[in-house]
Amino acid sequence: MNEKIIVDAHGGDNAPLEIIKGCARAVRDYGARVVVVGRENEIRAAAEQSGASLAGIEIRHTEDILTMEDDPVSVVRKHKDSSMAVGLRMLSAGEGGAFVSAGSTGALVVGSRLIVKNLPGIRRAALATVLPSDKGAYMLLDCGANSECKPEFLRDFAVMGSAYMNVICKVESPRVGLLSNGTEEHKGTELTREAKKLIEATDLNFVGYIEGRDAPMGGCDVVVTDGFSGNVFLKLCEGMGKMLSGVLNDAFKRNPVRMLGVGIAYGAIKDVKKQLNYKEYGGAPLLGLLKPVIKAHGTADERVIAVTIKQAMDYIAGDVGGRTEKMINEVMKTAVPAAEPRDSE
Amino acid sequence: MNEKIIVDAHGGDNAPLEIIKGCARAVRDYGARVVVVGRENEIRAAAEQSGASLAGIEIRHTEDILTMEDDPVSVVRKHKDSSMAVGLRMLSAGEGGAFVSAGSTGALVVGSRLIVKNLPGIRRAALATVLPSDKGAYMLLDCGANSECKPEFLRDFAVMGSAYMNVICKVESPRVGLLSNGTEEHKGTELTREAKKLIEATDLNFVGYIEGRDAPMGGCDVVVTDGFSGNVFLKLCEGMGKMLSGVLNDAFKRNPVRMLGVGIAYGAIKDVKKQLNYKEYGGAPLLGLLKPVIKAHGTADERVIAVTIKQAMDYIAGDVGGRTEKMINEVMKTAVPAAEPRDSE
Repeated sequence: MNEKIIVDAHGGDNAPLEIIKGCARAVRDYGARVVVVGRENEIRAAAEQSGASLAGIEIRHTEDILTMEDDPVSVVRKHKDSSMAVGLRMLSAGEGGAFVSAGSTGALVVGSRLIVKNLPGIRRAALATVLPSDKGAYMLLDCGANSECKPEFLRDFAVMGSAYMNVICKVESPRVGLLSNGTEEHKGTELTREAKKLIEATDLNFVGYIEGRDAPMGGCDVVVTDGFSGNVFLKLCEGMGKMLSGVLNDAFKRNPVRMLGVGIAYGAIKDVKKQLNYKEYGGAPLLGLLKPVIKAHGTADERVIAVTIKQAMDYIAGDVGGRTEKMINEVMKTAVPAAEPRDSE
Repeated sequence: MNEKIIVDAHGGDNAPLEIIKGCARAVRDYGARVVVVGRENEIRAAAEQSGASLAGIEIRHTEDILTMEDDPVSVVRKHKDSSMAVGLRMLSAGEGGAFVSAGSTGALVVGSRLIVKNLPGIRRAALATVLPSDKGAYMLLDCGANSECKPEFLRDFAVMGSAYMNVICKVESPRVGLLSNGTEEHKGTELTREAKKLIEATDLNFVGYIEGRDAPMGGCDVVVTDGFSGNVFLKLCEGMGKMLSGVLNDAFKRNPVRMLGVGIAYGAIKDVKKQLNYKEYGGAPLLGLLKPVIKAHGTADERVIAVTIKQAMDYIAGDVGGRTEKMINEVMKTAVPAAEPRDSE
């Protein structure tokens, strides 16, 4: 089975040019089947300009576009015919197996919730990102879909993250950590203390509280947190990487002999930058939905778009959704029922 | 006026040896007057062992020690005669102008609250850290003293951080940012949205929400957040630094030619490590107290202890407390009175 991947032609800094090039590359390199949604004339112009082949790529024309300035909720109102909204409806209707967009994260979250809907048993979908650690990689979620969370949401995130890391990253029994301000029992907030109890009651490989210091040092495979802290965490990783490479460059430039050293050591510095660039790991999946939606980074170029389409193919092939549903059902058998209604109810 | 600095001889990884050496160095290099509190025999043995001079250093003997394993609240109960507790009481009684300890952060926070007490008008003291940015440095607070906060606390933190950065780091009109998961109005949590309104109503140089990405890029001078997020932030900075230097080392070691480059570029890498080591900026002051208390890093060595003692001297000389009190009074003139009682009430 090779299901079609629905791709939003618009959104992000390099649309539609790099997106179309990325689609063509995914067809060529990974045998992807792609439906790209957006303004047909712009899509064809991008292909022509870049010499990218449209062979194996369907086009679904829609005129409207949702921008970063638009209110996220406009995806189901004013911009319900935007490329993002049309793509999400196509996904929900089964016209493809997954949806990839580099557009507004907020709109993609709202649209996915309302159009694609959650897996049975999952209260909130979460945005997840795979980040580099010194030993490999770990998943952080929620990276921003839910800035205020209830303990049950965090328990669900632990399940969703474990399913993903198991299926996609082949981690046999993913170690789940709950982000906190210390590892002792009395640390954390009311939210984390309640969530800790709920996660402890599951069969997950839960290692307890994890500190900000230990996450990049490979302390666990899935870091669970609310969308506020997760977003601060993710963006701080980005900012720290940027700051460090700036400081490193400056230090070298101050001295010509050092520059010579850099010339020689350049391969290493390039390797490091590549290893630390989390875009190498593809896009940020919205976990917990009935069908996979993946947010590609706004700065994604041809190669990153192709990798993200491949990630969507793996997601479908590995049936991350089915695995998550099975795991959440197991968890719910023993869990106390939560008062909180689900998103899609 | 050169007030005495009270120093906890115990606590941290290198006590009492490096602490005594650091005291001696502060006397020699900065003309500090020091009272060191702890086990007299161990203090004298440390001086003898290291050859550090005890000239200009008073010793206040106390037998009890508070360890990292002790419950923070034991500082006013079971360990009320520990070196930390005795030092805090000496500070409160005016036997010195500031207190420096490398011991348990939790105990220091609890002890300071209950023994030293807050400045009038300040609801909660906060732990603050100066962190490196690509353009220099910025202050982050609260780094962990209050894991759950009310909007008024964050407003107070903004005042306290501004006063410190103005007096100690000579920033004329410190730009204050409120840590959030995006800069748009609708972003943040209930806490940040309320705090934003309160800070906007002050005369502070408030730049609004700041994201994790922009803080290390010099986006503002004071980053205000609750103690949970702040602690995650601080420790993630530490972890990212550690991870990046590990990854860099590995990349170089993989290839002998690159190692040659490293030899040549070594000065630059050393410069960078120094610039990024936030311990270079001294200890973490507990802001908002009637008298200055500074937490030295648990791994602090002789040099870092000396720098932290110098920082305490600057704190007293610049009257950060008086400046904070004046600023909070200005703020409170126009602010709605908060329902929340102060710590020390």
